[in-house]
Amino acid sequence: MYTVPLPELEGRIRRFQEELAMAGLDGALILQNTDLFYFSGTAQQGQLLIPREGPPVLWVRRSLSRARQESSLADIRPATGSGDLAAEARTRVGGGLGRLGLELDVLPASLYLRYQKVLPGVELADVSPIVKRVRAVKSAWEMERLQEAAAVADAIHRAVLENLREGMRELDLAAAVEAAARRSGHQGFARFRGFNQEMYYGHLLSGPSGAVPSFLDSPTGGPGLSPAFPQGPGVRPIGRGEPVLVDYVGACGGYAVDQTRTYCLGPLPGDFKDACRTALAIQNTLCRESVPGATAARMYELAAGLAAGAGLAERFMGTADARAGFVGHGIGLEIDEYPPLAPGVQVALAEWMVLALEPKFTFPGRGTVGIENTFVVRKEGLTRLNISDDGPFEL
Amino acid sequence: MYTVPLPELEGRIRRFQEELAMAGLDGALILQNTDLFYFSGTAQQGQLLIPREGPPVLWVRRSLSRARQESSLADIRPATGSGDLAAEARTRVGGGLGRLGLELDVLPASLYLRYQKVLPGVELADVSPIVKRVRAVKSAWEMERLQEAAAVADAIHRAVLENLREGMRELDLAAAVEAAARRSGHQGFARFRGFNQEMYYGHLLSGPSGAVPSFLDSPTGGPGLSPAFPQGPGVRPIGRGEPVLVDYVGACGGYAVDQTRTYCLGPLPGDFKDACRTALAIQNTLCRESVPGATAARMYELAAGLAAGAGLAERFMGTADARAGFVGHGIGLEIDEYPPLAPGVQVALAEWMVLALEPKFTFPGRGTVGIENTFVVRKEGLTRLNISDDGPFEL
Repeated sequence: MYTVPLPELEGRIRRFQEELAMAGLDGALILQNTDLFYFSGTAQQGQLLIPREGPPVLWVRRSLSRARQESSLADIRPATGSGDLAAEARTRVGGGLGRLGLELDVLPASLYLRYQKVLPGVELADVSPIVKRVRAVKSAWEMERLQEAAAVADAIHRAVLENLREGMRELDLAAAVEAAARRSGHQGFARFRGFNQEMYYGHLLSGPSGAVPSFLDSPTGGPGLSPAFPQGPGVRPIGRGEPVLVDYVGACGGYAVDQTRTYCLGPLPGDFKDACRTALAIQNTLCRESVPGATAARMYELAAGLAAGAGLAERFMGTADARAGFVGHGIGLEIDEYPPLAPGVQVALAEWMVLALEPKFTFPGRGTVGIENTFVVRKEGLTRLNISDDGPFEL
Repeated sequence: MYTVPLPELEGRIRRFQEELAMAGLDGALILQNTDLFYFSGTAQQGQLLIPREGPPVLWVRRSLSRARQESSLADIRPATGSGDLAAEARTRVGGGLGRLGLELDVLPASLYLRYQKVLPGVELADVSPIVKRVRAVKSAWEMERLQEAAAVADAIHRAVLENLREGMRELDLAAAVEAAARRSGHQGFARFRGFNQEMYYGHLLSGPSGAVPSFLDSPTGGPGLSPAFPQGPGVRPIGRGEPVLVDYVGACGGYAVDQTRTYCLGPLPGDFKDACRTALAIQNTLCRESVPGATAARMYELAAGLAAGAGLAERFMGTADARAGFVGHGIGLEIDEYPPLAPGVQVALAEWMVLALEPKFTFPGRGTVGIENTFVVRKEGLTRLNISDDGPFEL
């Protein structure tokens, strides 16, 4: 059941080790559940030591039996005391352990300080930029997982078409759609890497709800049900002639595919329709221009330029006080993967990067419309993973 | 809509400031979303400076308008550069800023290192033990929120009774139950504080699934749908004569109430039934004995003693390689609140602490049964929040 094949893990570790060597790191200790899964095939509680050369070792606190069942790695051991860990780390890298990588972007400070004590004289460097770069480029095996996630995203779209009725609360539509997603294999959780970022299925927002800003690094927020979890659907009844934006993540086998569609009971008002057209034009242009070597920053500039050309600069990617600083983002095991398509990001796109493009336009007090699909970068541009029609859908 | 009243916030901040003074801290900078919500009433992206004396100041990056709408605090400002923050912190504490508290258990190391640079010469101490102690004791306002969450937990229980059928997949029952939870106001997310701990609604597990161990600090794990999100329901068809354990969290308005019930299509086999009886006996004893002043460790010992007396020591709280080290835990805005009822925890229970008690017994290869309710500590012992019958339920 979704066992990550050994050659797949070996390929990931080899690419990671090449980057470790280039960065002058003697090895890395991987601790975060998503990264553990990526490099070992199991997300059981453990510590994965990847030396710059040679095979990794995985110590597991719980569940050891399950980790051995799930992971194809050869060297899986019961959790060890931190002294043993330090000794083993020194042995593995040949005695000269000078710089060890840790995921400092997600590792809690208290754990970081504990590792400092256990490994005196060792420089603990942030290895997360390397982790993110390696994870950004997907394999053929990962493409299969992403295709399964795209099928879940399509189940979500079909559930909206089947269940959307005038006067129902956003929450009730969400309940029906989420149940359909679940039955189709949605894992019920989509992971963010960023501090304080969190996600339920996504944002299902009608009319003005679509223009409610939030803490989330996203063009939309939505009211949620309380200030304690301030995003996503609320209890507003859905009306006719207003946009219903459904930005839900299809997630299964760990992998997420982002998808946004705009729906309307009855005809979508003209200015919203025009904005949808501009969003699709941006998508088409970026699909053509996002070739290996093009920069993430350039993709954002192209999108922002087209938005401005359509007179929609002010509405692009959210409200004034909570605008998303990107038009797209890498996606895979986490929603906020590398690279963001954002101003200043001089990163060259590479073949097999997977990107969610989400040009959206927010009309204060009235709603947000737009489109989002997830694509893979190929030599000739972007190839699409999502299988649902683009819409907008007038019902 | 769930606005936290100003006197409520003031009371929380006052108790926090008393503890800051006792710990010799000049103030604290609160950054994690749940703690931000607790002390300010908003979870928008920001930094909350609570000096040892005097009013707090909240800087908000996004959304400022929403934070001002949601929070009753007086001093809410746009996000500031880190230099300004440092200057303001020094001013607020009267120039002698020596020790500042940060939530080092949840703050990513890279952010911690950034604050170290911005605040040279300032000792950054871990304030999370204080945050946890203050949050452990609930207010009357919080009790109302918890009662609402208990109603959601009851909606979950009723949905199980209505939907459980022989041959349906765990996942399909989960979809129906989660939809019912959602319609009743479940926020769709329940927060863990611990690193790498995460939760969907909880664990809905039939027969052997209930004995599948996992990474989670919990008596149960369950297969989940893949090793990438390795907990919760899988696709196993539910059979007759096997325990169906539903450990789902009712969560709304930010607050979570834990609840576990055991169901069975047809008669529950005798040994499971005996174990359920022992779980209820443990619950009853702990209800009586958990008075202010009793220690968390003592509650665990009592429970473990009763389990052993019933010949169930080996089955208590999980399988051998993934046993939960507690019989209960604090709960509120997070599932894993202070204190754990665990060996060695010499913490005295205090009135208005809220505790989830979850005595459970795991039969390897066959399943887990037990009970979980959430209680508030009062002078005479525990008062129960959950409103669902205890069961077990033979359908």
